Amino acid sequence: MLPRAYEGQNCSVARALEVLGDRWTLLVIRDAFAGVRRFDDFQRDLGIARNVLSDRLQRLVDEDVLERQRYQERPERFEYRLTPKGVDLWRALISLRKWGDRYYAPADGPPRVVRHRDCGGQPTRHLTCDRCGARLGPLDVVAERGPGAAPVAA
Amino acid sequence: MLPRAYEGQNCSVARALEVLGDRWTLLVIRDAFAGVRRFDDFQRDLGIARNVLSDRLQRLVDEDVLERQRYQERPERFEYRLTPKGVDLWRALISLRKWGDRYYAPADGPPRVVRHRDCGGQPTRHLTCDRCGARLGPLDVVAERGPGAAPVAA
Repeated sequence: MLPRAYEGQNCSVARALEVLGDRWTLLVIRDAFAGVRRFDDFQRDLGIARNVLSDRLQRLVDEDVLERQRYQERPERFEYRLTPKGVDLWRALISLRKWGDRYYAPADGPPRVVRHRDCGGQPTRHLTCDRCGARLGPLDVVAERGPGAAPVAA
Repeated sequence: MLPRAYEGQNCSVARALEVLGDRWTLLVIRDAFAGVRRFDDFQRDLGIARNVLSDRLQRLVDEDVLERQRYQERPERFEYRLTPKGVDLWRALISLRKWGDRYYAPADGPPRVVRHRDCGGQPTRHLTCDRCGARLGPLDVVAERGPGAAPVAA
């Protein structure tokens, strides 16, 4: 008989989701991949309540997905950076992005396009470059505005 | 300025997560990949409240991730199967599984092991087979009990 409690599920997908927990958590990680590091920048980008963001960041620090580093002493200010364990979420995140692009992109095309730094190609489903064939990892790509991006205010 | 509302985020990751919504939803999809099709079987495996499950299944049907098919007339009974759009979540799910395996597997090893049907190899990060090098898709693999699986009751 299978366990009834979610926590009791002996499954790596379930364990991963216990950590990633909710949609906000994955969007925090998405932002971290995009270079966001500071509390106020996460807050502005995500538009969530500060206490919710604070809770999600702390949980990710506790789980060693993000690390907190002080960048200013007075007043004390911290920034959050992906740990190697956090960077390892790149494949899951890019797979979710590709799925979202495929089924939910605006008519104009995807809001953001991920490109291979070296040649400008895009990742295939197998995370190789569709132009040069290189195997891609998180440091090999940049995300840029795509055809379906929202207009930038003048 | 970036939009403040979660719904307003023009991002494919955010859109994907709006659909996948919560942890239960991804575990329902995990179960569907494992061959679970009937309400009572999802319910037994996940141990969640019937109304919550019912809501999640309906949402996935509305979004064309699962399709509902009647398999019995009296009383009327339905089963849920992944659509092609649902099957397309395989890469995201397997990436989450690999992350969970890497950082949260029991000491004995992963609870489940995904293997290439043809040769028994395992998927690499690039979703190729680590034994024969084939590119793997959702129909090419089977999941079996791994070294860290919970003991089966006699």
